[in-house]
Order: sequence, then C-alpha cells, then structure tokens
Amino acid sequence: METMTNPITRADGRTPEQLRPITITRGWSAQAEGSALIEFGNTRVLCTASFTEGVPRWLKGEGTGWVTSEYAMLPRATNTRNTREAVKGKIGGRTHEISRLIGRSLRSIIDTKALGENTIVLDCDVLQADGGTRTASITGAFVALADAVTWAREQGLVKKNAEVLTDTVSAISVGIIDGVPMLDLPYVEDARAETDMNVVVTGSGTFVEVQGTAEGAPFDRDELNSLLDLALAGNAELASIQRNVLGWDK
Amino acid sequence: METMTNPITRADGRTPEQLRPITITRGWSAQAEGSALIEFGNTRVLCTASFTEGVPRWLKGEGTGWVTSEYAMLPRATNTRNTREAVKGKIGGRTHEISRLIGRSLRSIIDTKALGENTIVLDCDVLQADGGTRTASITGAFVALADAVTWAREQGLVKKNAEVLTDTVSAISVGIIDGVPMLDLPYVEDARAETDMNVVVTGSGTFVEVQGTAEGAPFDRDELNSLLDLALAGNAELASIQRNVLGWDK
Amino acid sequence: METMTNPITRADGRTPEQLRPITITRGWSAQAEGSALIEFGNTRVLCTASFTEGVPRWLKGEGTGWVTSEYAMLPRATNTRNTREAVKGKIGGRTHEISRLIGRSLRSIIDTKALGENTIVLDCDVLQADGGTRTASITGAFVALADAVTWAREQGLVKKNAEVLTDTVSAISVGIIDGVPMLDLPYVEDARAETDMNVVVTGSGTFVEVQGTAEGAPFDRDELNSLLDLALAGNAELASIQRNVLGWDK
Amino acid sequence: METMTNPITRADGRTPEQLRPITITRGWSAQAEGSALIEFGNTRVLCTASFTEGVPRWLKGEGTGWVTSEYAMLPRATNTRNTREAVKGKIGGRTHEISRLIGRSLRSIIDTKALGENTIVLDCDVLQADGGTRTASITGAFVALADAVTWAREQGLVKKNAEVLTDTVSAISVGIIDGVPMLDLPYVEDARAETDMNVVVTGSGTFVEVQGTAEGAPFDRDELNSLLDLALAGNAELASIQRNVLGWDK
Amino acid sequence: METMTNPITRADGRTPEQLRPITITRGWSAQAEGSALIEFGNTRVLCTASFTEGVPRWLKGEGTGWVTSEYAMLPRATNTRNTREAVKGKIGGRTHEISRLIGRSLRSIIDTKALGENTIVLDCDVLQADGGTRTASITGAFVALADAVTWAREQGLVKKNAEVLTDTVSAISVGIIDGVPMLDLPYVEDARAETDMNVVVTGSGTFVEVQGTAEGAPFDRDELNSLLDLALAGNAELASIQRNVLGWDK
Amino acid sequence: METMTNPITRADGRTPEQLRPITITRGWSAQAEGSALIEFGNTRVLCTASFTEGVPRWLKGEGTGWVTSEYAMLPRATNTRNTREAVKGKIGGRTHEISRLIGRSLRSIIDTKALGENTIVLDCDVLQADGGTRTASITGAFVALADAVTWAREQGLVKKNAEVLTDTVSAISVGIIDGVPMLDLPYVEDARAETDMNVVVTGSGTFVEVQGTAEGAPFDRDELNSLLDLALAGNAELASIQRNVLGWDK
Repeated sequence: METMTNPITRADGRTPEQLRPITITRGWSAQAEGSALIEFGNTRVLCTASFTEGVPRWLKGEGTGWVTSEYAMLPRATNTRNTREAVKGKIGGRTHEISRLIGRSLRSIIDTKALGENTIVLDCDVLQADGGTRTASITGAFVALADAVTWAREQGLVKKNAEVLTDTVSAISVGIIDGVPMLDLPYVEDARAETDMNVVVTGSGTFVEVQGTAEGAPFDRDELNSLLDLALAGNAELASIQRNVLGWDK
Repeated sequence: METMTNPITRADGRTPEQLRPITITRGWSAQAEGSALIEFGNTRVLCTASFTEGVPRWLKGEGTGWVTSEYAMLPRATNTRNTREAVKGKIGGRTHEISRLIGRSLRSIIDTKALGENTIVLDCDVLQADGGTRTASITGAFVALADAVTWAREQGLVKKNAEVLTDTVSAISVGIIDGVPMLDLPYVEDARAETDMNVVVTGSGTFVEVQGTAEGAPFDRDELNSLLDLALAGNAELASIQRNVLGWDK
Repeated sequence: METMTNPITRADGRTPEQLRPITITRGWSAQAEGSALIEFGNTRVLCTASFTEGVPRWLKGEGTGWVTSEYAMLPRATNTRNTREAVKGKIGGRTHEISRLIGRSLRSIIDTKALGENTIVLDCDVLQADGGTRTASITGAFVALADAVTWAREQGLVKKNAEVLTDTVSAISVGIIDGVPMLDLPYVEDARAETDMNVVVTGSGTFVEVQGTAEGAPFDRDELNSLLDLALAGNAELASIQRNVLGWDK
Repeated sequence: METMTNPITRADGRTPEQLRPITITRGWSAQAEGSALIEFGNTRVLCTASFTEGVPRWLKGEGTGWVTSEYAMLPRATNTRNTREAVKGKIGGRTHEISRLIGRSLRSIIDTKALGENTIVLDCDVLQADGGTRTASITGAFVALADAVTWAREQGLVKKNAEVLTDTVSAISVGIIDGVPMLDLPYVEDARAETDMNVVVTGSGTFVEVQGTAEGAPFDRDELNSLLDLALAGNAELASIQRNVLGWDK
Repeated sequence: METMTNPITRADGRTPEQLRPITITRGWSAQAEGSALIEFGNTRVLCTASFTEGVPRWLKGEGTGWVTSEYAMLPRATNTRNTREAVKGKIGGRTHEISRLIGRSLRSIIDTKALGENTIVLDCDVLQADGGTRTASITGAFVALADAVTWAREQGLVKKNAEVLTDTVSAISVGIIDGVPMLDLPYVEDARAETDMNVVVTGSGTFVEVQGTAEGAPFDRDELNSLLDLALAGNAELASIQRNVLGWDK
Repeated sequence: METMTNPITRADGRTPEQLRPITITRGWSAQAEGSALIEFGNTRVLCTASFTEGVPRWLKGEGTGWVTSEYAMLPRATNTRNTREAVKGKIGGRTHEISRLIGRSLRSIIDTKALGENTIVLDCDVLQADGGTRTASITGAFVALADAVTWAREQGLVKKNAEVLTDTVSAISVGIIDGVPMLDLPYVEDARAETDMNVVVTGSGTFVEVQGTAEGAPFDRDELNSLLDLALAGNAELASIQRNVLGWDK
C-alpha cells in the first residue's frame, strides 16, 4: 500500500510523490501571441511567447527558425526584496543559467525547419517564487509556445500542415530530504534538500535535461535512480495537464 | 445636459470625461507587506510595497523614514516585445523618469517623521500596458503603501497612533484629441493626443504634480484649464475607489 | 503700485517677479555650427548645436529631420564635487529627464519637414550651477539652434526659404517660497521652495511644457494660476532677449 | 572481448571508453598558494588557488570558510578569436554557469568548518580549448586546492589535524555519437554529440553533479545508464592520477 | 642668427620654437577652491581643484594627502561631435591615460606629508580642443591646485607654514614636422607630426615625464635631443606665465 | 673596468646593465597563427597573433591592414589576487594604456600597405607578473606577429614578396635606484625606482617610444641620457634573441 511505503507527510500535507496544485491560465496576457500564467502551489510565473518573422543574422538563409527564452524575477517575488538586475546593470549567473535551460528545453521539441525563418521568444517572469520557478517556467512556456505556433499557422506565417512541435515538454524538481526522495519541492524543502535535481522530460517520457546537484553529501547510483523514477512520474502528470489545458485530449 | 456638451463617443464607448473600468485587487502578492494588482482598462500593474527597518546611509540618525519607487515593464507588456533593460545593462530615461515621479508622488502624502527610520520600496511592474501605466502605478502603489503601513503598525514597527499617511494620492492622464479634452487615455488615444498631461492629486483635491507636454502644437491657457478640471474630477473618483477597496469608507 | 503688492526683497536684491541678470554670448565655441554661453545669474551653461546630414535609421526616408539634446554637468559645477557619470558608467535619472525635456522643448518649434533629413544635436553642459540649469539650457539651446539653422541654410543644406523655426522657445522656473510666488529661483531659493515649476513657453506665449511639483505641501488651483502668470511674463522677457541677441528685432 | 563490443576507433585513435592523455603540472605558477596546469589532450587550463584569511561579509562570525571559483578563456584559446568579456563589459551566461559548477563541485569535498574563516578562490583560465574545459578545470582545480590547503596548514592558518578535504573530486564528459557512448569528448566530437553529459564524481565514486543535455534527440533511460557507467570509470582513472601527482598513494 | 637656422613660418605665423598665445584666467569658476580657464591658442580647458578633508580608505592613517585628476572633453570640443563617455557607459583608453598623466604630473610637485590627510581632485574639462589639451590641462591644473592650497591654508586645513608645493610644473608638446622640430603643436600640425612628444617639466627644469612616440618613422638620438631642448625652453616660458598669473613674481 | 664602475650587485645577482634570463617559446599555442610564451625572469606572458582577412569598417577600401593589441593579466598573476576586469565590468586605465602602447609599438615596424586589407590582433596575457610585463609583451608579440605574417604568406593571404615587417621591435625597462641606472627591473626594484622608463626600440636602434616617469624626485638631463644608453644596449640584446629564435640569423 502507498501509505505503508511512504508514511511521510510533508509540511503542506502532500505525500513525497505528489505534485503541488498545478494551475495553468491560458491567454492571461492579451498582447502576446501565446501566454500562460502557471502556478505550482505558490509559485506563479507569467510566460509569454512573442512571435516575429525573421531570424537572428547568424541564421539567415538557413531556412530554420529560432526559439529562445529569457527568465527573470520581479524584485519582490521572494520573501525579501532583491535588487533588480536592470539596476545592477548586469544579469546574474543564476538568471543566465535558467534562461539557457528553458531555451534548450523548448528547442528540444521544436522542428526548426518546420518553423521556417521565424523567431519565438519565451519570456518567463516570476511574479511569486516558492521553489520550482525554472520547472514551472518550462512547463508554462510550452503552453505559450504551442499557442504562438497555432497563431502563426492561422496567420499563414508557418505552413498549415507543418509539424512544428514534435512533442510536449515539461519539467519538475525532485530532491532527497532526510533521506527520502520527494517530488516538486517548495522553497522550504528545497533549502533543506541534500540533493536537488531538475528533470526535463518530453511527453513520450524521454530525457531532455537531467541536472542533479549534491547540495550536501554526494549521492549514489540508487538515489539517482529513485529520483529519476519520481521525476518521470511527475512529468507524466504535467504532460497530461498541458494537453488538457490546450484541449488536445478530446 | 451632459450629452449635449459632449456628444463625442470614444472608440471604447466612453464619453470624454469617463474613466476606464478600474479594478484594484488588494493583496495579490502573498509575500509583500502590501500589494495591489491595479487595472485601468487593459493596463495591468502589479504594485508591491516592501517594508524594511532602517534607512539609507545618508538618512541615518535623522529620525525620518524613506519611501522610494521603481517602475518597470515586462518585455511583452506591449504589442511588440521590448528588450529587457537588464539585458541592455542600463535603465532608460523614460523608466527613470517614471520611477522618480511615483516616488515623489507617494512621498507627498507620507509623514516621514511618523514613519520613523524605516524604508518602504514600491515596485510597480507593468504586466500589460495600454496607456496610463504611470498613473495606474501611482494609484495602485498608494493602496500597497497603505497596507504596508498597516502591517508595520501591527508589527509594532511604527507607533500605534502615528499618522504616517497624511492623505490619499492618485493620478490620471488627460489629453486633447481633435481639440477635445479627454480623461484617462488608452494607448491609441495617447498616441494621437496633441497635448498630454499627467496630474497627481491628493484626496483633498490639491496638486502634487502637474506634467503637461505639447506633443504637437503648444497649448493655451484655456486648454490647460479644461484639462485640469477633467483631471481633478477623475482623481476624485479614483480616491473614492481607493478608500473603498481599503475599507476606509465604512 | 508694484512695491506695495510685493514689498518683499530677495537675498540677491530682486523683487519676486524679476529675472536674474541674463547674458547670452553667441558663438562662444568656434567649432560648433551654433553655440551660446548662457548665464542666468551665476548659472552658466555652454550650449552647442551640432548639425549633421542624415537622420537616425528609424527616420530614414521619411523626409523629416531630427533634433535631440544631451544635458550634463561638469563635476565641479556645484558647491561640492559630484562623481562624473562617465566614471559611474551610467547616466542618472535626473540627467536623462532633463535631456529629454530640452529635446522635446526644441522640437516643439521646429518644422522637421522643413529641416529635411538632417540631425541637430544640442549639447547643454553646465559649467556652473546655481539653480535653473534646465531652463537656462532650453533658452540658450534655442540660440545655438537658430545659428545652426542659419549656417545650414548658408551651406545649402536646408532650403533657402524653408521656415525651419516656427517660433522661439524659452523656459523659466517659478516657485512658492514662504507663500510668495517667485520667478527664476537660484539654488538657495530652489532648495526652500514649497512648490517648484518649470514652464516652457513659445515666443507667442503658448505652453510647450508645464512641470509643477509640490516639494512640500501640495498646492491649490490659485497658487498654480499665479505661478503660471509669473512664468508667462518671465518667458516674454527671455524671448525678447533671444530675439535681440540674434538680431531679429531690426 | 572489449575489442569486439567496441570495434570503433575515434579520430584520435582512442577507443570509446578511453581518456585523452592527461597531464597535470603541479606548482606551474610560482605566486599562488596552489596551482596546476592541467592538460586533457589539447585542452590546457591553468588552475590557481588563492588563499586569503577571512570570509565574505555574509559569512563572518559563522566559523566556516568559503571556496569559490572563476572560469575564463583567453581570447585565442579557440580556433577563432573571441572578444574578451572584459571588453564586452559583461560576463556571458556560459562563463557564469561553468564558474558556478566548478565552485559547487569543489565545495562538495570541503569541510568548511575545518577550513575555518578562510577563503580559497580557484581561478581556472583556459589557455587552449579543445573540448572538456570545464571538466579539466574541476579536475585541475582540485590539485591546486589540495596544495593551498597544505600550504595553509604549514602556515598555521588551518589547524594541523583538520580534515579540510573530505575526498577527492574530478569530472569528465561523456556523450553519445552515432549511437555510441563515448568518454572525454574533444571539440570535434562534442560538436557532433547527440547527447552531452558532464559528470562530477568524488574519489569514493558518489555523484556530485550530473548534467546531461540532449543536443539533438532526447535520450532514454538505457542511454543514460551507459553514459553514467562510462563516466564513473573515467573519473576513477582521474582520481588515481590526482592522488598520484599529489603523492598521496604510498 | 635665429632666422637663418629656422626660416620656416608655420600656418599660424609662429616660428618653430614659439608658443601659441597663452591665457590663464584664474578663478573662472566661483564654486571651486581653485580654478583656471587656460587657453593655448584655440585650445580651452577649464581646470578646477576640489579640496576635501580626508583621504581614500587605502591611505587612512598614513598622515599623507592625495592628489588625483580627471580629464574629459565636451562632446563638441572638436570639429565633429563625439559620443559622450557617460552615454557609452565607459571611459576610453585615451581619457584614462591622460587623466593618469595629469595626476602623476601634479603629484610630482606636491609634498603629500605637508598636505596632511586631505584630498585634492583636479578636473580638467576640455571646452574646445585644438591640440595640446593634455599639456594645457597640466599647466592650468597647477594654477588651480596652487589656489586650492592657498585656500586650504587660509581655512586652517593645512598648516600655515607647510610647503605643500615643492615647485611649479607645466607641460608642452613638441614634434617633428617635415624634419623640423617644433614647439606646441595645434591639431593640424599634430596630425602631420612624424614624432610627437609631451614633456612635463618642473619650474627648476627637471623632467617629470617624457612621453615620445614615433607616429611615422622611428626617431634617432639627435632628434630626441633637439625635441628635449625645445621642450625645456617652452616649459620655462610657461613657468614664468604661471608665476606671473599667481602673483608669485613680486 | 666594468666591475669597477659598477661594483653593485642586485638582489638577483645581476649587474646594473644585465638583462634577466630571457626565454621565448615559439608556437606555444597550437591554434593561433603565431604565438610565443616569453619569459623575462619570473615574468611570463603568452602572446598570440590572430590573423583575419578584412579590416575594421573605418579602414575598408583603403588597401591597408590593421594591427592592434590587447593586454590583460590573469587574476593570480601577481602576489595577491586581483579582481578580474570582466567581473568589474570595465577595463582599468593601466590596462588600456599598455594595450595601446603595444599596438603602437608593433605598428611602427609594419608596412600596412604590404599587409593588405588584413587584421592581426596581438593578445598579450600575463600568466605571471614580476615587473616588465609591458616590455616582455612587446618583445614576445613581435615574435608571434612575425610567425603570423609568415603563415599568411604561406596561405597566399599576403603577397609572396611583400615586406610586411620593416624591422624588428623590442622593449625594455630602465630605472634609477639609489642613484644607479639599472636595466630590466623586476617588481621589487620597480617599486623602489625613483625614475622608471620604458623604451621601445627597433632592431636598427631607433626609438619608437620613450616613456619616462619620475616616481619620486624629477630627473635631470644627465640621468635621462644614461637611462637611454642602458635601454639601447638592452634592446640590442633582445633583438638578437628575437632573430635567433625566429631563425633569421643564417
């Protein structure tokens, strides 16, 4: 029985293998070609997809499109206010790293030939942060991206029958806390985790990105395996929520 | 009769002296000491107030507090995507100007002695822009500020009976379009206005800031007067909405 | 009688409605297409106009010209030395705001069609600051601009009979000190003013820009009206000095 | 037999599970407290460890030390010259990401309590780049770090018997090329890899960091497993080379 | 006879060994502790000396003062407008180099012990540039410095009888044009010079700085010698002008 | 006898007119078109020459090439670690000044017409610093430059018989310590020198650059002369080492 193998209850009442409540509000932003306000518990990210014709100079004439992403946090998305990166005059290492991760993740399920010489920029702005902002960003950005692709098809900017999206993609965090592997860590758990892993997975269950870090003691092969199991299960749920909100499962 | 003097109807169906639908959602952000999501029609600004003990070095030992503000726009708050200022590595002139205006406006109704040696930072982040983002920011930031002051009083960080807020404050834009003075301009009207004016007014109806600019032909004294009339009436409505949402009018 | 309504004498011996001594030295700089060293009392600003053929990329092919401005202060223009903005690596909010104001003010009296696809940059560098640096800048920049236009006409870069300048433009500060509206505030008065207003006016007496700020208590409609009266009278004097120094009054 | 399962020979003559020639020159730099010039084939990284007493402000009084790292490339470390980041005025996302990875990796085998309130900065400057610069950096930085700790012990700056290093740490890249998992990719292989993984492992064989990215098609669980097998074997060899160069084996 | 060995007349009518007209206006700036507007022909530099008590952190408690300098050019000091360094966000190499040269030159004649723990910053802002801006800056900055020292002595900030200035200092450019060594080059000559040299000399005729650069062909020992002769004679004249304007020659 | 006039022995055992041991390792870097690791005693600089076809925009169509240089120091090239300029976000004055000096020095022996429309960038990265980093950079960069020119000739990128290099160039420091002129100062001597001079000389013994600075007391004409004598002799030795390592002497 479930409750026997995992009799642990978390501070927010979840079992170790349970996601936080996930909400995706499609089209929250009226101006973008695609947008989604995604919530993983108290984490709230506004994802917008901006479609423009043409590609950066270094891609011109290649017949392929470009998908990229920028991640940022409002100064008071966290419990104490952070200085704006625009005020500091430079973007921090963490911000760069997450922006690059989101971009790579979405490019993994895009057929850039099918997209044609068009660019889609995914902006993921964290309005409220409670752990998992990068995984929420990837999961929400996919929905915004899908809507931008649909919009472009309707406008005749990409071919009618072009399969621009080759799959869905989502991401979830997993970690080991007090020796127990757990899914979808809020801030309080993330801060205590011995090992922290972000796993980006396609709808078909293959890996796009595996980023595991021992925050405290290094982890062994068995722990790695159980974290990957949890992450695959969590992402399967997210994929189902994405398909649902996009109306893809009739 | 009203309809005789102003038989004009605007693109969005309003009369020249009518505000757009105004919505203020108090406490939208769970982490800030005060917050408000304010909407002037399609313009949406998230205002948060961050309260911290202590003041900047140049104010230490003066026994007075400090209130300041930062304004920013998400890259896709507008119809086409703008480069993030953090990416450019510097903050533009317009952003600076609006941040300073919001800060001055709020300081006008704060008794900094009563605030004590504490700092409140108002962040106004435009999630969606359709004209009037600076006036919505001032109006929403007041609500966030009021809640932060209440929070501080409850925490014993400011004295129980200190009258930190000396009045309410709000702001509205007015402009002359095709010779007709109009209230609360959305983007399409703002772009066409011959004269554009932002007027910041206290709840008692006195002026905090008057910023009028001839975008096209210079304007005369009569035009200035009718714009001021409109702005005073609009701000009176906003003050009433603020008091209402704060529960100040029993 | 004048002396009965305003028996007040200011620290520098002026009556409330009197300008400081105004001096404009045309052609102070040998290299610029137009230049003026302007003095409002102890405030000294070097204004140069740089004329170049062509316009910024976003204006190309529109058949219209471009006028813009940059304002700056020498580090020791003030009583204590300020860090150079070049050393800080970024331009402050106040500098941006004033640069934009000067640019808007001068564009208000330029017929950009008549200017053709040419650019004029007005540099206003404050050599010595004693209040009113932005108003002196606008007033002096007009003279530099007028000379640059004349130079361009002589060079055949703008058409002989093109009316590039549609009017003159000048600016003056006004403020309320101890309840009395006063014209053209030096630093010591500016620092004490309850309300501070900069008013940009054309030679024909229409408003280009009205920027009033309550530094202390908000101001009422009557105070606003008397400040505007003072500003219009002051600007009329400045316009006359400009015409005189340019030799436009036979 | 080995040669039957992997009859593949790589461009540089190695079998898929073979490391490039590894050279570590201890003490290459006379001035640093520890230093190593490490070579993974043609990749050459100069690693220096700078020991200073005291810790950053946010750690003061905690009784723990701090280890951090900065990674950079000389402009002509690569086949074509890159602009210096100092000239661009900002550090790129990739540089930040690698600096952070190196720092985390080394902190995983440091007992910061035993280090006391001291700081060690590891600078990893790539003099020549041919793939695997981040893994060479981690592996070489460990040697520099070990020498800096020895130096500090000799100086009496850390306690005689303090076990500052809890283990060794090294890193290696693995990737799938034409369906075959391969160890330690030089640039030409890295550019063709479908999946690319950097694995940081302690001398005891536990994981510190696992970063796998699908550059082309997402990868499945089996591929992930065979990459991890290769990486563990490669890191075991590196650990042995490190111990050898440090004279830690008998 | 002079005219036989040097029958050459320069474009501006000078003989090779003649200075341009030199003008020094002491106290041009009312606010600074010392100031001088210096003119070398059409080159005009405003030099101000800002005296502040205290020294930078790294000098505290040493009992010695600090003298430093910043050099800059107004954007339209030259024939075509240059972008402001504040707008570019960084200071160019030439500006840095000249600022450092001016600082070193003035420190050579300052007894920093006698100055006490005080700082003097010399700002040299080029209002109009026609060659020799760095030599004019040094020569003018000395006058501003001397007045700031006098001011400080009068204020009791440095000891009455402290010999803060150990000598005077001035600078002049020399160059070889069409094989002829010439003194004090304006822009048109400077651009044509095969060799260009800036020589900073004390009032006693000893060298503080010798900076010679072959712009075209390298120069030999004889040419170097005749340039040094010219520079010593020119600086002797400048020293006399400085003493005269300071009223040091009874 | 030599030993009678200079019975002084320096800390490192040299006589005043002796160079430190000079080592030049040609082709240290595999990827650059030319490279040299140069050592002046403990000072070690990696010089690479990057050859690219084409010239900066402002030189296009002139038929001449461009040679430029960038100098930098690794953070731990010195006894205590310096902050990276990339981290500070700006390049310091000293770095700019040395980069410019190296570029000018190398351009003095390049026939840019013979080079054709090609660019060579010399990167001089100081791996270890012990005085004389700028003179070692110039001397080593010449070797890297010579090899890049040979490479370009072999590739047919410059004409077979074009005399791109008109001479060799090298540089050495000289200084006065305790009244004695000395050659090639290491850090400990440089810090004590009363006068410090860097002299760049061609293989034919003519001057390219003479930069003398009085660090302490100004220097007189005789001292200047003996420093120049020393520098010419030292550079003659360096030229011979350069020719030798390049295999230019029979």
